[in-house]
Amino acid sequence: MNEIYFLTGNKHKFLEVKPIAEKHGFRLLQYSDEKLEIQSNDLIKIAKTAAFYAYIRLEKPVLVEDAGLFIEALNGFPGPYSSYVFKTIGCKGILKLMENIENRKASFKSASVLIYEPYVLVSLAEVHGSIAYKPRGAKGFGFDPIFIPEGSNKTFAEMDIEEKNKYSHRARSVEKIFIELKRLLREDR
Amino acid sequence: MNEIYFLTGNKHKFLEVKPIAEKHGFRLLQYSDEKLEIQSNDLIKIAKTAAFYAYIRLEKPVLVEDAGLFIEALNGFPGPYSSYVFKTIGCKGILKLMENIENRKASFKSASVLIYEPYVLVSLAEVHGSIAYKPRGAKGFGFDPIFIPEGSNKTFAEMDIEEKNKYSHRARSVEKIFIELKRLLREDR
Repeated sequence: MNEIYFLTGNKHKFLEVKPIAEKHGFRLLQYSDEKLEIQSNDLIKIAKTAAFYAYIRLEKPVLVEDAGLFIEALNGFPGPYSSYVFKTIGCKGILKLMENIENRKASFKSASVLIYEPYVLVSLAEVHGSIAYKPRGAKGFGFDPIFIPEGSNKTFAEMDIEEKNKYSHRARSVEKIFIELKRLLREDR
Repeated sequence: MNEIYFLTGNKHKFLEVKPIAEKHGFRLLQYSDEKLEIQSNDLIKIAKTAAFYAYIRLEKPVLVEDAGLFIEALNGFPGPYSSYVFKTIGCKGILKLMENIENRKASFKSASVLIYEPYVLVSLAEVHGSIAYKPRGAKGFGFDPIFIPEGSNKTFAEMDIEEKNKYSHRARSVEKIFIELKRLLREDR
């Protein structure tokens, strides 16, 4: 089975993506090396930079996925800085910022970049939803307890991986990548 | 015509590669931005790093070509550091190091890396030859006046671009890349 190294220190993220890779015939390995994260408003650019940087060192197929929560009433905040914002002010800080705000619309976006010579593949996916009024659930990670995807009443943190992957930005963006890679490998035989 | 940006500040290099690109249906543009050159013994790794780094900024198809002169009697010196060595001790320095050395065998190696989404292509080529006893010719650049490729009596600096491209490491490595790119683009239609 073809191996792909997934650059992430986040075990949850790895466990979400692993079954999707396997479904498409790729073995996913967690690669917890340093991740170069540039400051940018462009999720794809952030993921590409990290992927190229890791690939130079690793010299093996490498996948990077970067996500952000974009809240409409907050002008897209925290966006590409979601990880940093989560580590500092957390779900609590977001809920405080959202006090007395009726417009709860938000979306999670995910950019994936795969370097798999001779291919470099990029994909972007988005899931629309809303910010809950209180955190709910203990599964997942990051802002999962306060995000409710359209089509469900649960937050991401109330779903197990299989259910979350039916809705999630991440599942969609990595799935697009694996499908495209399979197609290219098939055509290139 | 599909455009490819060739990252080089060296006009000679650009003029050598341009007709090869055009022969295969690509328009080559010179991109004289900063080139990140890591220290490494691996020409491919040097070219890849520069290519990824440039690609992140440029966000357009980018080609990088790195070459080195490897002299057998000098344990491969100047190798990947040829450009630096040329700028400091020059052809004169190399000829001095080669005084009283009978083994004149040398080779020019060229690594090319092309990032052209969804492809990242790498190629390596080599031309064997020998180090002249005196510099000859005024064409080309770098160590061209002291390198005589096998199959010719002229140094690279005595050849015009068309003739040099029949022998050169650079012409071979970039040509392989353009051929491979054409093949992939054709299959991916």
